[in-house]
Amino acid sequence: MRVLDHPRPEDIRLEAVLHALADPMRLEVVRFLAQAGGEVACSEIDLAVSKSTGTHHYRVLREAGIINQVYRGTAKLNSLRREDLDALFPGLLDSVIAAAARLGTRASSARHSG
Amino acid sequence: MRVLDHPRPEDIRLEAVLHALADPMRLEVVRFLAQAGGEVACSEIDLAVSKSTGTHHYRVLREAGIINQVYRGTAKLNSLRREDLDALFPGLLDSVIAAAARLGTRASSARHSG
Repeated sequence: MRVLDHPRPEDIRLEAVLHALADPMRLEVVRFLAQAGGEVACSEIDLAVSKSTGTHHYRVLREAGIINQVYRGTAKLNSLRREDLDALFPGLLDSVIAAAARLGTRASSARHSG
Repeated sequence: MRVLDHPRPEDIRLEAVLHALADPMRLEVVRFLAQAGGEVACSEIDLAVSKSTGTHHYRVLREAGIINQVYRGTAKLNSLRREDLDALFPGLLDSVIAAAARLGTRASSARHSG
């Protein structure tokens, strides 16, 4: 079973986390995982981008320390590293998710009207 | 008197704010301004980079809506747009500043030993 690299909690950097979150697609993934509260297959999150672009966004999130990715059979399952992030940067994830959720309505309206 | 462009509050985008914060120099400026609590001249913040690099970082922060920059005589004064940011993204700036402050000690130690 292939195991993907993840940074240890002590190697998670604030700048990398902020950079990874500074993208609408990746924010959407983080919001979705926060709402789901557990492991979610990539295929369950509709990003409306190519598979390779999607894979790239998940990798950026994983390498920044924001999500865990594990293989279960043929599926790659994703979950938020909420405990690690809350311990390292208290309140950051919650404030970003709340802000993204409020903007999400605006973004969805824009997308649907486009 | 030259007046610099600033985004209106309704034009401040979460992704742009996160991107602007995802840099150690710009985090240092934001931390400094948060501690100062008012207007600070660029020359008061020692970033240990060239003037043009410093100017670039301040511009990214201004264009993202994180700081105000005004000319007073020959000085360019900077201040955090705390009210705008707190209204748009409650808790975000505080959590980032707190995280940066905790990491700041680590970063300073690394710099001084380098």
